[in-house]
Amino acid sequence: MNPSISIGNYLIEKLLECGVRHAFGVPGDFVLGFDKLLEESAIEFINTCDEQGAGFAADAYARLRGLGVVCITYCVGGLKVTNTTAQAFAEKSPVVVISGAPGKNERIRNPLLHHKVREFDTQYKVFQELTIASTVLDNPNIAFQEIDRVIAAALKYKRPVYIELPRDMVFVTGNPNYQAVKQPEASNAEVLNEALNEAVTLINHARQPVILAGVEMNRFGLQEELLQLVEKTNMPIAQTLLGKSVISELHPNYIGLYQGAMGQEYTREYVESSDCLIMLGTFLSDINLGIFTADLNPKHSIYVTSEKTSIRWHNYEEIRLQDFVRGLLAADIRRRESIATNPLKIPANFSPITGQQITIDRLFGRLNSFIDKNTIAIADVGDALFAGLELFIHDKSRFVSPAYYASVGFAVPASIGAQFANPNLRPLVLVGDGAFQMTGIELSTVVRYGLNPIVIVLNNKGYATERPMRDGAFNDILNWRYSRVTELLGAGLGFEVNTEDELEAALMQSQAHCESFCILDVHLDPQDTSPALKRLSSALGERIGSQ
Amino acid sequence: MNPSISIGNYLIEKLLECGVRHAFGVPGDFVLGFDKLLEESAIEFINTCDEQGAGFAADAYARLRGLGVVCITYCVGGLKVTNTTAQAFAEKSPVVVISGAPGKNERIRNPLLHHKVREFDTQYKVFQELTIASTVLDNPNIAFQEIDRVIAAALKYKRPVYIELPRDMVFVTGNPNYQAVKQPEASNAEVLNEALNEAVTLINHARQPVILAGVEMNRFGLQEELLQLVEKTNMPIAQTLLGKSVISELHPNYIGLYQGAMGQEYTREYVESSDCLIMLGTFLSDINLGIFTADLNPKHSIYVTSEKTSIRWHNYEEIRLQDFVRGLLAADIRRRESIATNPLKIPANFSPITGQQITIDRLFGRLNSFIDKNTIAIADVGDALFAGLELFIHDKSRFVSPAYYASVGFAVPASIGAQFANPNLRPLVLVGDGAFQMTGIELSTVVRYGLNPIVIVLNNKGYATERPMRDGAFNDILNWRYSRVTELLGAGLGFEVNTEDELEAALMQSQAHCESFCILDVHLDPQDTSPALKRLSSALGERIGSQ
Repeated sequence: MNPSISIGNYLIEKLLECGVRHAFGVPGDFVLGFDKLLEESAIEFINTCDEQGAGFAADAYARLRGLGVVCITYCVGGLKVTNTTAQAFAEKSPVVVISGAPGKNERIRNPLLHHKVREFDTQYKVFQELTIASTVLDNPNIAFQEIDRVIAAALKYKRPVYIELPRDMVFVTGNPNYQAVKQPEASNAEVLNEALNEAVTLINHARQPVILAGVEMNRFGLQEELLQLVEKTNMPIAQTLLGKSVISELHPNYIGLYQGAMGQEYTREYVESSDCLIMLGTFLSDINLGIFTADLNPKHSIYVTSEKTSIRWHNYEEIRLQDFVRGLLAADIRRRESIATNPLKIPANFSPITGQQITIDRLFGRLNSFIDKNTIAIADVGDALFAGLELFIHDKSRFVSPAYYASVGFAVPASIGAQFANPNLRPLVLVGDGAFQMTGIELSTVVRYGLNPIVIVLNNKGYATERPMRDGAFNDILNWRYSRVTELLGAGLGFEVNTEDELEAALMQSQAHCESFCILDVHLDPQDTSPALKRLSSALGERIGSQ
Repeated sequence: MNPSISIGNYLIEKLLECGVRHAFGVPGDFVLGFDKLLEESAIEFINTCDEQGAGFAADAYARLRGLGVVCITYCVGGLKVTNTTAQAFAEKSPVVVISGAPGKNERIRNPLLHHKVREFDTQYKVFQELTIASTVLDNPNIAFQEIDRVIAAALKYKRPVYIELPRDMVFVTGNPNYQAVKQPEASNAEVLNEALNEAVTLINHARQPVILAGVEMNRFGLQEELLQLVEKTNMPIAQTLLGKSVISELHPNYIGLYQGAMGQEYTREYVESSDCLIMLGTFLSDINLGIFTADLNPKHSIYVTSEKTSIRWHNYEEIRLQDFVRGLLAADIRRRESIATNPLKIPANFSPITGQQITIDRLFGRLNSFIDKNTIAIADVGDALFAGLELFIHDKSRFVSPAYYASVGFAVPASIGAQFANPNLRPLVLVGDGAFQMTGIELSTVVRYGLNPIVIVLNNKGYATERPMRDGAFNDILNWRYSRVTELLGAGLGFEVNTEDELEAALMQSQAHCESFCILDVHLDPQDTSPALKRLSSALGERIGSQ
């Protein structure tokens, strides 16, 4: 990289080096200079309707590409992506938040400049709470170094970072003598060796070892190694909710999603009765563990994430997840002969019943035969997610959902990020009516950039996830005519779906219509919820009810 | 107030005591218990589509009623209103942010509960940066006291505050022995006396005194006193942009909006040549001062706000704005005989020219005769605001706009808050196409609650405010068919407006159609901007261009 370049251009070069080809955002006067630089670069700037949409799109992009960028103006833009950044933090998605800001020279004597909240560093302070590293590029001597430091942190910890770029620094040249120093990262070899030896011994002596893979396998790019480990050892593998589609769910060794009492009984039984549970990159969050109904005995566990390594009751320091996984793959683990098989199979030959009112169960039954290797399912929070768990995902990283932080309104804008991240995939967006009302209008961005998701609106007339917990008028929403959003946007294909045959026809037409988005307004009985949601609501309801 | 009540009910009682009758928000599991309490109370809970809409609605409500409430769930809700809270902070709008949160008992051992970002207090820390007071109600012994303290701060400083309510504390009884203590607030009498004497002497000796009134006259409920002061002394009065409609703009003593080089020449000349400028509650922000083109000599100034009192070059401490204004009103200020008169008058008898392409100038010319005493104009950021300055507002507090912090997307949701705050008013929403794409879909909330704003979409195909500064594809947006949002929502009346006669017909029909919203998609030439915007863009453009 040529160091005699401006701070703005160095930042762009760095992002390109990391594989970024798109940045999502909304322009504003404090960031216009940088937006213009982006426009002239190999990174395409994607305008969303609102900054929230850009934040979710960048998050999805990061989950699929390893790094995402949201680029917004000061405060009125930046403070609109605090929630999306928080989600990226909680779910380990490496998003670079780039915020334009008042120039250094404009800050002298602390005037009341527009978009200012309290002090000039208010936004910076807020993002310090929500990111793993942050910087204000107000010193040309160290700007390049700061960019490298902050982006390295995003890549190392898979968490969002914050870069504030005062508008009078964009075109300023940085330190021409700066030389990037790559910090080699590695585990402590002796510690790693001892941990691996212990793990291998436990696995080889176990009667029923099972891998429980989590979302960090995706974040740290370890899915190929994981697959090889499974195929080499022939061990069965389960996934967690947040880690869904870490491997193909059609793989013969796959035994289902483990989520305590919320999940399938077969998977629960198998995992909980294991005498050697190998948890790799697994978050132990409440929803992931079926609202703490999971029963995983540490006595039989090998638990390795980017943050912690434990075997049985003791911990190891200085072990990197990727080194441990690669170490396991290289180790002498004995191959199992016959393995467990998940009795769950994709329902074959779905036959629609003409005139039959569609149910959520039948809808997802049908979607299971609709999706293929080129589908990426993107599930919003609510029953879209819980019913979505029933889908058999054909390939790794083909299911995206904010299953831990659970911010409603993620799916439609996320589909934008996902399709830019991998244009070979067609998004299948699963979204509740409440969630669609938050951010569904980002279909405008879909139209503007010629994307083509198929959007399934689960229209159950309100916040169905909440009704079983505590119901009231606050859970009702206006019943939009969702399929007519095409009228407003002047593009897309809309369908009203009440019956199984209408669903069939709409899906067939959507499959054939690739030039723009399709939206299916699927009318469901408000009481009709997925089995997983029924179990979750009951668990959450008890929690609230007792208080 | 009966102190033997639950913390949730005490909070509701306190809000009722302050005149709050509506709370805006989106439900979520951590706040459902409190939502239910609200539903059972005299405060109506208004669901918006997205939390951002609720935040803006509460802000507008606070500007008109003296206190507003936004009620949301933990993090996925709360972090969506950071930007709207920041705006309320910057523009002094007393909004109470009430956030549900994980129960105290759920926080033990710091589990990975859904919606959690980093630590349980992450959201609290963020809001400490954006509010004037904040609390977590996790101690029943001091909960009532804390509620009183925080709400008192909102009322005193006219800034937002943050109240976090763990869900297991909603129904817990507070301290039954608690007795609220009213802290009497007053100026230091001697200081006030000296300052008033000096001010009165200056005013009485001045050749050309003029009042420049700012937004704090509204926030501190001093509009009636201000009007009396003007009428008693017969002094001319100008307003600032953020203070627009502090008094009726039809008042004979009103001489226009002062905004440096951005404003009308007559007003500028008169204010800047004054030998006694009485600035009351005026923010000296950049846009308010015409991007620092104002030329106000402190040598001739009396400057009093809630934060600072200065006369000429010296400052006074311990003076409350309201005491100073009331003191002026009571003082012996000599009455002026003949006063300046603003040559600007409402253009009379607007005659539409059939087939004539509508321009922004003619549009606002027509709107000037359309609005009346029952209209509240709500202007979004952009040319909606700058052209909106040309409107002659008929009564005090009939123009609302975020003219300092300038967060785009304010107007449609703000109209919801405004109409709940005062159901006798019909909102006239002035909104750019870019702004409408951010939050315009909150018309869904308008439909749900039977409100009836008239929405004027200034459709100039993009971010027109930014084009003169630095143009690029990032300033383009998809050209929605705005008038067909009625198709999506199943309600409202939409109009396409290209010509003056179409405008005329649409306005007439909108006036007659009071049962739901009306939306006018006014097609403007993308180059056609208001004179004020041309002056502003040029000022901002120079600032960017030089960097």
